[in-house]
Amino acid sequence: MEGGVDHLAPERNKSEFDVDAMKIVWAGSSHVLQVSERMARLVASDPVFRKDNRPMLGRKELFKNTLRKATYAWKRIIELRLNEEEASMLRSFVDEPAFTDLHWGMFVPAIKGQGTEDQQQKWLPLAQKMQIIGCYAQTELGHGSNVQGLETTATFDPKTDEFVIHSPTLTSSKWWPGGLGKVSTHAVVYARLITDGQDHGVNGFIVQLRSLDDHLPLPGITIGDIGMKFGNGAYNTMDNGVLRFDNVRIPRDQMLMRVSQVTREGKLVQSKVPRQLVYGTMVYVRQTIVADASVAMSRAVCIATRYSAVRRQFGSHNGGPETQVIDYKTQQARLFPLIASAYAFRFVGEWLKWLYMDVMQRLQASDFSTLPEAHACTAGLKSLTTSATADGIEECRKLCGGHGYLCSSGLPELFAVYVPTCTYEGDNVVLQLQVARHLMKTISQLGSGKKPIGTTAYIGRLEQLMQYRSDVQKAEDWLKPDVVLVAFEARAARKSAAVAQNLSKFSNPEEGFQELSADLAEAAVAHCQLIVVSKFIEKLQKDIPGKGVKQQLERLCSIYALFLLHKHLGDFLSTGCITPKQGNLANEQLRSLYSQVRPNAIALVDAFNYTDHYLGSVLGRYDGNVYQMLYDEAWKDPLNDSVVPDGYQEHIRPMLKQQLRNARL
Amino acid sequence: MEGGVDHLAPERNKSEFDVDAMKIVWAGSSHVLQVSERMARLVASDPVFRKDNRPMLGRKELFKNTLRKATYAWKRIIELRLNEEEASMLRSFVDEPAFTDLHWGMFVPAIKGQGTEDQQQKWLPLAQKMQIIGCYAQTELGHGSNVQGLETTATFDPKTDEFVIHSPTLTSSKWWPGGLGKVSTHAVVYARLITDGQDHGVNGFIVQLRSLDDHLPLPGITIGDIGMKFGNGAYNTMDNGVLRFDNVRIPRDQMLMRVSQVTREGKLVQSKVPRQLVYGTMVYVRQTIVADASVAMSRAVCIATRYSAVRRQFGSHNGGPETQVIDYKTQQARLFPLIASAYAFRFVGEWLKWLYMDVMQRLQASDFSTLPEAHACTAGLKSLTTSATADGIEECRKLCGGHGYLCSSGLPELFAVYVPTCTYEGDNVVLQLQVARHLMKTISQLGSGKKPIGTTAYIGRLEQLMQYRSDVQKAEDWLKPDVVLVAFEARAARKSAAVAQNLSKFSNPEEGFQELSADLAEAAVAHCQLIVVSKFIEKLQKDIPGKGVKQQLERLCSIYALFLLHKHLGDFLSTGCITPKQGNLANEQLRSLYSQVRPNAIALVDAFNYTDHYLGSVLGRYDGNVYQMLYDEAWKDPLNDSVVPDGYQEHIRPMLKQQLRNARL
Ligand SMILES: Cc1cc2nc3c(=O)[nH]c(=O)nc-3n(C[C@H](O)[C@H](O)[C@H](O)COP(=O)(O)OP(=O)(O)OC[C@H]3O[C@@H](n4cnc5c(N)ncnc54)[C@H](O)[C@@H]3O)c2cc1C
Ligand SMILES: Cc1cc2nc3c(=O)[nH]c(=O)nc-3n(C[C@H](O)[C@H](O)[C@H](O)COP(=O)(O)OP(=O)(O)OC[C@H]3O[C@@H](n4cnc5c(N)ncnc54)[C@H](O)[C@@H]3O)c2cc1C
Repeated sequence: MEGGVDHLAPERNKSEFDVDAMKIVWAGSSHVLQVSERMARLVASDPVFRKDNRPMLGRKELFKNTLRKATYAWKRIIELRLNEEEASMLRSFVDEPAFTDLHWGMFVPAIKGQGTEDQQQKWLPLAQKMQIIGCYAQTELGHGSNVQGLETTATFDPKTDEFVIHSPTLTSSKWWPGGLGKVSTHAVVYARLITDGQDHGVNGFIVQLRSLDDHLPLPGITIGDIGMKFGNGAYNTMDNGVLRFDNVRIPRDQMLMRVSQVTREGKLVQSKVPRQLVYGTMVYVRQTIVADASVAMSRAVCIATRYSAVRRQFGSHNGGPETQVIDYKTQQARLFPLIASAYAFRFVGEWLKWLYMDVMQRLQASDFSTLPEAHACTAGLKSLTTSATADGIEECRKLCGGHGYLCSSGLPELFAVYVPTCTYEGDNVVLQLQVARHLMKTISQLGSGKKPIGTTAYIGRLEQLMQYRSDVQKAEDWLKPDVVLVAFEARAARKSAAVAQNLSKFSNPEEGFQELSADLAEAAVAHCQLIVVSKFIEKLQKDIPGKGVKQQLERLCSIYALFLLHKHLGDFLSTGCITPKQGNLANEQLRSLYSQVRPNAIALVDAFNYTDHYLGSVLGRYDGNVYQMLYDEAWKDPLNDSVVPDGYQEHIRPMLKQQLRNARL
Repeated sequence: MEGGVDHLAPERNKSEFDVDAMKIVWAGSSHVLQVSERMARLVASDPVFRKDNRPMLGRKELFKNTLRKATYAWKRIIELRLNEEEASMLRSFVDEPAFTDLHWGMFVPAIKGQGTEDQQQKWLPLAQKMQIIGCYAQTELGHGSNVQGLETTATFDPKTDEFVIHSPTLTSSKWWPGGLGKVSTHAVVYARLITDGQDHGVNGFIVQLRSLDDHLPLPGITIGDIGMKFGNGAYNTMDNGVLRFDNVRIPRDQMLMRVSQVTREGKLVQSKVPRQLVYGTMVYVRQTIVADASVAMSRAVCIATRYSAVRRQFGSHNGGPETQVIDYKTQQARLFPLIASAYAFRFVGEWLKWLYMDVMQRLQASDFSTLPEAHACTAGLKSLTTSATADGIEECRKLCGGHGYLCSSGLPELFAVYVPTCTYEGDNVVLQLQVARHLMKTISQLGSGKKPIGTTAYIGRLEQLMQYRSDVQKAEDWLKPDVVLVAFEARAARKSAAVAQNLSKFSNPEEGFQELSADLAEAAVAHCQLIVVSKFIEKLQKDIPGKGVKQQLERLCSIYALFLLHKHLGDFLSTGCITPKQGNLANEQLRSLYSQVRPNAIALVDAFNYTDHYLGSVLGRYDGNVYQMLYDEAWKDPLNDSVVPDGYQEHIRPMLKQQLRNARL
């Protein structure tokens, strides 16, 4: 706590489990907990990293401030000789989108993943010392989801041994890359590779954009920022950019050539490195997005939970205190499933980290067998967790009533900065359809005896699952993990099987896929929810130390699953997995779980271990001292610089004094 | 169209109905259409009303600009001698929250509704000429939903014949009132009326806040702005304020005394005017909110629909154009129900206008019989339509992919300015529970023979509805209005009956209500959805001229209903209203309806008749010239004032040049 009275102490005293042990579970290990605590404190205690003024800053000021923070963070990383783990945590606690995200998160990995040994040796040291700053320039004004439709061209000129990078149309302008607009000196640019008049599809190229002397764009290059984005502060700290090429020449060896190469003569040759390797990068990036979803969701629920315990409204008896809004069942029914989701996403994210390592090991050994399943799984989980988190943040904002609408609550900015995650790295609906395609393929191959693996393994038991009827007889039966699991398996399997059957009625399968795509997307969601539920259950099969910790997690797991069951009751009933009576029992069990979680709610969000600086919310303060801080924050608004507002003389006074006709407005 | 090529002409040529006739249906009458067209053009053509720069302005500049627009609008209203209808339309097309909203929308109605004849004669002319500017100061830091818990006191002092207005605690600070922070000279302040040491609960008082000479707060009064709110531009044009009273004295006749009066001696007496009259104002305000929901929803879908027809992604054959994203079934399944919702909310809003008049006529005649039902109905519809609209706007933003995240798409600001509607004028969940209470009461009174009326009339047929089984046999059966209607009635009735039965198991009914409140809220939603569906169906029973117009609306009505049925399939199945097979048929019918609506989609949103100025969206432009405009807009960002950004020398260069140790950061 950061000094003063702890208004939430009574809540903390109520909790029935060891919060410190839960902190370790959340962090993943006591090592990670300890490092993250150290980094969080480092950031929180340094005035340069202040962020409460962000919503009030104009674009230029905001952006300059981000440059300052990013550079200062880098300076600290060097001074303190932080290792990679520490550095990346420090950056994440700075909590402000910046060009460095793309430099470290996309530019460097792209060179690692797609560059040859030589290219890596040339470019990585420069990037790692930040002697160059890079971004990832894929999306164009006209093409995002459909990467194969990109229009920028890279034409090989055998005369000079160069590629000519060109933007042939308006819609081929690069558009969106973060860090591009004002900062990056280099970019990995995706363009159609053309040799000898032949189009070989899209490939990556390292292109220098700005002079390293004066930062001016190089000849033939036009760059700018694409303008304001959603929200106050939020993603406006990032210079998402526009970029046009007018026949810009780069040496041949700046084509990323790990997979295919262009020879001096302009011949395209495939290397021995399998194309599939690029999927590894995708699995990696999406796994980090799932981990980030649990962070964003947990921040939002931490704010909403603490404030719901502070806020009182109605229900005073004989002049006593009113009811804490967290005691209202509607509030619980909205909030507690989101707490459960934060933990669920945390654990599935942990598992994805394992999956990524597994995939990479197999790739090294040229075993591509698990790749399609792993790829579909990460795509689906990216889609599921980010959509749920975006909606969850906004629900948390609404759970805070009017005060959640103030920037000082932290929730508006959290929402605005988070939502694009539903769109980038694969639009969530496009990803659902990819998952569905994989499911349909898996089902269609059952006949030929191909055994589904990994997260689709349950489809191998399709016949059995088609027979399944839940045997739940009383509410508590829904607490049994296997009861829940098989219900989710049956629902997912039957949803997929039903669409597959409808698909088979179409003579043109592609037409069928288009026509039934909304149903396909639903089947994909059912499948992905099953994954999250099953990984939560798996986590609970492991040893989890700490008094009461496992019990709390069991409750949250049940809440997560039964909340989904209630929300998608139509699925479970229409596929005949459960009866209406069993659905009611699940709902009954859910209510009782809410009551059990209630006394632990504050401790469950304390376990995220966020500093007040990181949370950035007056409503979510650790000490619950909400009202005084709300009041104090208000006066910092620029409008309060003067009692009588600028504009009174010109606009308000003439109106009041009925002197409008003569007023110059 | 505003000059140039119409990129959407092929879409417009496809449509199968008379768009001009639909414009009249949407507007309500050709008179309203004509006036609104005139006012919209007046605003759009005047550079003072420009709003595309809003997201880039700092708070002070933004606010001053709003003062300018509001005063200028008032000037134009006077100069052009606009009548009330015209003036209010002009204000709405200015499309910027301002103090005038509260002055006209809350302050004036409060005096009209709660002031005596004398008070009205004294204050209304001043307000109507804007010689005073008023706001509505109810909410406090500590109390919003629970108005009866307000802490501000108004203590009668018989010695001086005055009320002493006082803020006894920090949490009693008035907090949120729009127009309060910087502009209002007066407020209707809600405070606990205390006479002779006795607390009589909350009443309204007219309090002067600022000097009419120099605009300074009067002695004992502290006022400020409460700070930045969600989003760029958006509600930050409004000076939501904080207000504290230190024993401020006002004359006795500034208590609003239409219902209860305090005599010279300090005695509280009730007037003959019934208390219920205040509900009339609530019905009025919420009816306007429902109408506004249809406007906000229609703006968002207009943008998303037009852009979805312009945007192409994937599916090119032999180098031909790619597929318009509006042709993807997932896009249709997300978008078309929202178009249908816009129309549905329009018609239920129209009906609410009638309901308000009906209620007022009855009140004049001291007939209070319909009031509880009308009150519950408007509360429920406010809750339903605003929640759906807030979610719908964000869905429209996502439907636009990455570009929807840019402020120039108009959608971020539309969302941010709209969402508080879910919270003010009654938090949507609190309202759902009010509706549920009314439903439970209605059911409990069935036994005593009390016949449910109005929108609850179907509950009178409870026994019959409990027996109902849908007889749908083929997909087209779902197109029959009576088939849909009775399914929605049965579902709503059974949901309510089921909770009522569960409630009866509790010995303490209030405890039962708390425990089951999540279920109660669901029952309320089912009831409110039924109302919207039934009013849409009623609308279609009337004569609607224009080629193909009625047919389009019939399709939209079916889409609205079947989309809800699909979304809440669990309700329909678990209550046994329909079978899983019938649910599938509904879904099948929905798909076919989407295909039928597809060629008319653009024309259906053209019928809203919005100018490009009002829409304020590069993606939603009438002419579909999206890419050029996106590109041009980008360069207006302040960050593009210079090619090399401010901060390069201090922050970027030292990093690139490895000179951080010596850098002053
Ligand atoms: C904040 C932010 C940062 C970004 N950073 C970068 C960056 O650093 N580098 C970079 O290269 N890019 C970046 N992007 C771009 C991002 O990758 C794209 O926006 C994203 O890929 C989505 O593509 P789109 O915008 O073209 O959406 P679209 O594909 O145009 O989507 C529009 C609509 O069409 C639907 N749709 C599209 N295809 C199909 C289909 N086949 N079936 C059904 N529906 C379909 C979508 O679901 C959506 O509803 C960023 C974007 C944002 C918002
Ligand atoms: C943009 C904006 C403009 C406004 N303008 C004005 C204005 O001009 N004048 C004015 O006086 N006020 C104004 N308000 C205040 C507004 O009326 C209140 O915010 C609103 O009434 C909600 O109350 P609250 O904020 O206290 O929410 P709370 O009641 O504190 O809600 C917090 C949470 O508790 C839940 N909750 C509360 N009570 C119950 C219950 N009994 N059962 C179950 N759940 C419950 C809610 O659902 C919510 O999730 C404005 C607010 C905003 C955001």
